Amino acid sequence: MLEFELIKEDERSKARAGVIRTDHGTIPSPVFMPVGTRGTVKAMEPRELLEVEAPIILGNTYHLYQRPGVDVIEKFGGLHSFISWHKPILTDSGGFQILSLSELRKLTKDGVRFRSHIDGSYHFFSPEKIIEVERQIGADIIMVLDECAPYPAEKEYVSKSIELTHDWAARCKSQFETSGPLYDSKQFLFGIVQGGTYLDLREKSARQLVNDNFDGYAIGGLAVGEPAELMYQVVDFVTDILPAGKPRYLMGVGTPENLLQAIERGVDMFDCVLPTRNGRNAQVFTSEGTLNIKNSIYRLDGAPIDEECDCYACRSFSRAYIRHLFNVDEILGLQLASLHNLRFFISFMTKIRSAITDGCFPEFKRSALSKLNTKKKEEI
Amino acid sequence: MLEFELIKEDERSKARAGVIRTDHGTIPSPVFMPVGTRGTVKAMEPRELLEVEAPIILGNTYHLYQRPGVDVIEKFGGLHSFISWHKPILTDSGGFQILSLSELRKLTKDGVRFRSHIDGSYHFFSPEKIIEVERQIGADIIMVLDECAPYPAEKEYVSKSIELTHDWAARCKSQFETSGPLYDSKQFLFGIVQGGTYLDLREKSARQLVNDNFDGYAIGGLAVGEPAELMYQVVDFVTDILPAGKPRYLMGVGTPENLLQAIERGVDMFDCVLPTRNGRNAQVFTSEGTLNIKNSIYRLDGAPIDEECDCYACRSFSRAYIRHLFNVDEILGLQLASLHNLRFFISFMTKIRSAITDGCFPEFKRSALSKLNTKKKEEI
Repeated sequence: MLEFELIKEDERSKARAGVIRTDHGTIPSPVFMPVGTRGTVKAMEPRELLEVEAPIILGNTYHLYQRPGVDVIEKFGGLHSFISWHKPILTDSGGFQILSLSELRKLTKDGVRFRSHIDGSYHFFSPEKIIEVERQIGADIIMVLDECAPYPAEKEYVSKSIELTHDWAARCKSQFETSGPLYDSKQFLFGIVQGGTYLDLREKSARQLVNDNFDGYAIGGLAVGEPAELMYQVVDFVTDILPAGKPRYLMGVGTPENLLQAIERGVDMFDCVLPTRNGRNAQVFTSEGTLNIKNSIYRLDGAPIDEECDCYACRSFSRAYIRHLFNVDEILGLQLASLHNLRFFISFMTKIRSAITDGCFPEFKRSALSKLNTKKKEEI
Repeated sequence: MLEFELIKEDERSKARAGVIRTDHGTIPSPVFMPVGTRGTVKAMEPRELLEVEAPIILGNTYHLYQRPGVDVIEKFGGLHSFISWHKPILTDSGGFQILSLSELRKLTKDGVRFRSHIDGSYHFFSPEKIIEVERQIGADIIMVLDECAPYPAEKEYVSKSIELTHDWAARCKSQFETSGPLYDSKQFLFGIVQGGTYLDLREKSARQLVNDNFDGYAIGGLAVGEPAELMYQVVDFVTDILPAGKPRYLMGVGTPENLLQAIERGVDMFDCVLPTRNGRNAQVFTSEGTLNIKNSIYRLDGAPIDEECDCYACRSFSRAYIRHLFNVDEILGLQLASLHNLRFFISFMTKIRSAITDGCFPEFKRSALSKLNTKKKEEI
């Protein structure tokens, strides 16, 4: 079983601070996990991920399976060694990507048949196959194959979908238990709660998975277009069902505000492409909200992106210089914005965790939310 | 006057090892200068330029004048401070770019009128204006405005061109002498020898400039399409005319072989986009020749790009991983290939310099050239 120690539970909310222990290192929670889809967090060197203090990164099974291919990863002794990242990794099962990227996908009880969006080749992922592939990749935390229903979706559709997802989860678990890691570090399996925005279906899905006893539980199928308030409601509802002693992971979320709201509702783990994707589009995060660093108002601005930030970009460069880099399409602009944004998210998490252990999370949340709206207010 | 100390002159060739001293630091010669056209060496962080031990980088006056604009650079106290690079910088005058990039350019005795290739706006660069702009940028070594004749060109054309170039050089010198640096470091002015492949015109151009007594002398108008042997012949001829006590800079050159041949003929300084541009196209340099790292033969290759290289890319990653990064268009691929290639060029220069000071440059050259052809031989 995955070692998850609760260090502190907030008395006035469901927020909690903990530690997850893996063979590749210790992950303080709540934690923000940078996304390294194809074996690299975009525009970041692994040593820079250490520098911004990323405790764990994500990889994506669907993408890695296609390129470089799991034979390559296995030949190099697993993903950690292939990409030179020696801290923890979590792999998504690829369910979400199969549904959003691949062509001609066909879902059956047995699994999903799909055509690669790269070369048109046909592939079949069964729950057993996904576990096999995730064993070859060798991440510390691996996810079951699930169906992520779209939003909105008819209740009847979602109801069938959670049955399929639960059946697949059970088969993943069974395959996981009858196999072992290929390399010299333990792996842990998380189930994924689905059910769209239907609370009774969420309850059913959660209870089924809890009954199967996974190492941790993800909440999937959110942040897919539903209003934020609805997402918070579902999260709040689901975390009441999940066992306190296991980590809870809200997949694909989100903005600094989303993180605060979900942590308050008992979530421990998050992943999102926001810091890197938005960074590459010149949107930088600060404690006072986001800036579009390409904006001409920064042409002569000698301040760093964020006065409070300790990252290499903020220590070394002005907004004016970073604006210039984006303005002339220089790669260094993408590098610096990605590095800064990741440091911002990770450092934001560290502050949240300290607030929880110090017993002042509600105050921290209130003040952080208000500060995050400074830029928005200035624009009005 | 620029301090240039000759440490050692090879007894069996014209190769020499020296030291150039500027207020931003000491430059060992022969030296390879990475190109940072628009205020950044592409895909490289300034701290990584320090790491690969770049002693000096280039900036381009034409590009910087347009974006971010010299008012921005001046507001930040010069280019060093704007881009956070505190070692020496050399700025090209922009003559080459005006001729190759701008639209509707019109050359007159007074200077050159051109339309920006960015926004279509009209500008006029006189020799005096260029010096003024280079004062605003504040590089340690600055270049005169010149006309770089194409290859091939009629002798009559080139003959008129060197007269114009000399006239402009003299006016640049005069403007340089009647003005001072805007920031707290000295600037030095280099003349540019032109004359195409006509030795008598090269001689005339060189003698005129030497007579004007510049801080150093560049050889321009080469590596523009003429055969390498012809380039070496012109270089060999011109370095005999240039004074021994001043640095000699062969502009826009070149491959590792070009560097060896030109150093043997008495050149001290080089700049070229080859390591970064080719790196971004997956061509990596090694002591045994170049590799196309995207090639499928590297799919499972666990070796570093170059076993002999001490750069971050070679210390940390396999060819297979870097191939994967290029294969999926990940920015990290460009970063690692650029970093490696720059380290290769700079480290190659360090080895050449040691060979000169150790008195074994001819032997080093022979052996390096033969080794650089290993990959080529393997392909045959």
